[in-house]
Amino acid sequence: MARFVTDERLEKGSTLIRPLVISDLRLMDDSRFPWLMLVPRREGATEIIDLPRVDQTLLLAEIETVSRVLKSVTQCDKLNIAAIGNVVPQLHIHVVARFRADAAWPQPVWGFGTAVAYGTEQRDNLVSRLNAALPA
Amino acid sequence: MARFVTDERLEKGSTLIRPLVISDLRLMDDSRFPWLMLVPRREGATEIIDLPRVDQTLLLAEIETVSRVLKSVTQCDKLNIAAIGNVVPQLHIHVVARFRADAAWPQPVWGFGTAVAYGTEQRDNLVSRLNAALPA
Repeated sequence: MARFVTDERLEKGSTLIRPLVISDLRLMDDSRFPWLMLVPRREGATEIIDLPRVDQTLLLAEIETVSRVLKSVTQCDKLNIAAIGNVVPQLHIHVVARFRADAAWPQPVWGFGTAVAYGTEQRDNLVSRLNAALPA
Repeated sequence: MARFVTDERLEKGSTLIRPLVISDLRLMDDSRFPWLMLVPRREGATEIIDLPRVDQTLLLAEIETVSRVLKSVTQCDKLNIAAIGNVVPQLHIHVVARFRADAAWPQPVWGFGTAVAYGTEQRDNLVSRLNAALPA
């Protein structure tokens, strides 16, 4: 298997929270929405169906865990989960906490306006809360 | 378990292709994009994490099957898969075939412009091809 390298466009706009079993869990640097990204460390995968079934099952488990954590930490109104990848084809799954009062509601966040970067303290605080809620 | 009733807003803009094991497979009535929707027949579910794990696994298998069928029938450049539900909360999963030359590329299709209904023959033809490619 080829060595996995995170696409630099995914890396640039986000912060690594922690590596999970199959994916790296990252926080998008956009303070408008609590927005997580799972990047499975599988070189060359662009679609979920590119993954062998065992990896799909692992990924589903990580989507579930991360969804529960994000919902409990943010107390959001709705989760938005998507694999799109039209711009950056490297497989990545968005898990976004949505609020009826957020900037884009009820539109999806993808392609909506311009990201507003976190302040360092604000970002570190959210990452800490997410890490504390994730299973060890 | 309460009897499942498809939300009329999901029903109205789409056509039932066939019921699968856990979900109804529907075709969105928008000829701009080959756009499928899986609606798990689970009353009250609005998030994937609302489903018991066994149902999540069934749903993942249906997403995989439908993704493969849609890709092979349309020869699309990219699949876009999402659970959003900000407008219609009843759980439904979008599986959309995307082309670099389509009307919205590289933007997502959700909230993009206005649906262009299929002609009856065009829709029936696509439904037939999808049905022929689905496992019996």
